[in-house]
Amino acid sequence: MENPKGGREFRRTNTMKRIAFLLFAVVAVAGVVVHMAHASGHAEGEAAPIFGIKIPPGYRDWKLISVAHEEGDLNDIRAILGNDTAIRAYREEKLPFPDGTIIARIAWSYVPSEENNKVFGRPQSFVPGPAPDWYLQLMVKDSKKYAATGGWGFAQFNKEGKPTDEAKLKTCFPCHEPVKARDFVFTRYTP
Amino acid sequence: MENPKGGREFRRTNTMKRIAFLLFAVVAVAGVVVHMAHASGHAEGEAAPIFGIKIPPGYRDWKLISVAHEEGDLNDIRAILGNDTAIRAYREEKLPFPDGTIIARIAWSYVPSEENNKVFGRPQSFVPGPAPDWYLQLMVKDSKKYAATGGWGFAQFNKEGKPTDEAKLKTCFPCHEPVKARDFVFTRYTP
Repeated sequence: MENPKGGREFRRTNTMKRIAFLLFAVVAVAGVVVHMAHASGHAEGEAAPIFGIKIPPGYRDWKLISVAHEEGDLNDIRAILGNDTAIRAYREEKLPFPDGTIIARIAWSYVPSEENNKVFGRPQSFVPGPAPDWYLQLMVKDSKKYAATGGWGFAQFNKEGKPTDEAKLKTCFPCHEPVKARDFVFTRYTP
Repeated sequence: MENPKGGREFRRTNTMKRIAFLLFAVVAVAGVVVHMAHASGHAEGEAAPIFGIKIPPGYRDWKLISVAHEEGDLNDIRAILGNDTAIRAYREEKLPFPDGTIIARIAWSYVPSEENNKVFGRPQSFVPGPAPDWYLQLMVKDSKKYAATGGWGFAQFNKEGKPTDEAKLKTCFPCHEPVKARDFVFTRYTP
């Protein structure tokens, strides 16, 4: 670096450059932190009781395991998604599911599509409507942490990311127990 | 490079190295070709008539747009997936869909789940059964190539990757025409 103006000037310029660099670094780090907080979405929200599960960031982008319709009190249409560990285990037909598996079940109320039916000329099309209280359910595999419930932690959140209460979560495992032979998971992978 | 043994020996060694390299290159390229053919799966299969669409590799890994149930003659349960261009356009609520958009609709026959119903104690659970003839339908956006049909090419394949016939494909666009305001796409994104 050329410095025709002597030592003091050089030091001043150099100090200003350092300050500028530090400012840049602070802004950059702050930007990354803000971006991460934004990208993680619901994940910063409340953890579900008992199992302490938070909504995993990006779950809506996960691959599809299957779909289903539940009649009766639920009356919903649902998609079951899995993280990469879940999808790999399903496709390789590996049981039990390995630690790190997360299965995300999204449910929407089951409503007729009036705009589709108008085109088809008859009531035949049913599509997702508003989200019910049980919008998102999660099963998280951690064979040590959740040893008392078959190695699975359970959570339920509404559309706003609010977890359900403890009493409700205590009903999860007893209902899944009859499908122990499928590692307590109801949903089959649908190719 | 050192060559203490003189010019002829040098040329011989050099030629052998070149041959070895060429052999390596040929094997490597062949490996890549074999890998690509394997990875693409159905994509090497037959193209659908009229629009000339092949099954896009990896479509089963695409992100979820929505789900639906069709009653009546179809009686199926379906998942609608989109490639990244489709998902981005849906989430940004951009219409018309940009060129390169592919929407993949997978349908399975709609059957009661006896194993689920046994646990619930009543018939309430409906799940995907065997694949019907209309297992996979595709909409591919190319505003120039498919200008005559709203910028969309249509294709249908059965589970084995066999495309449907020309007569059937000719019925696609007329049915989608009433939803021109949504760029001819029935399915809405379900967050």
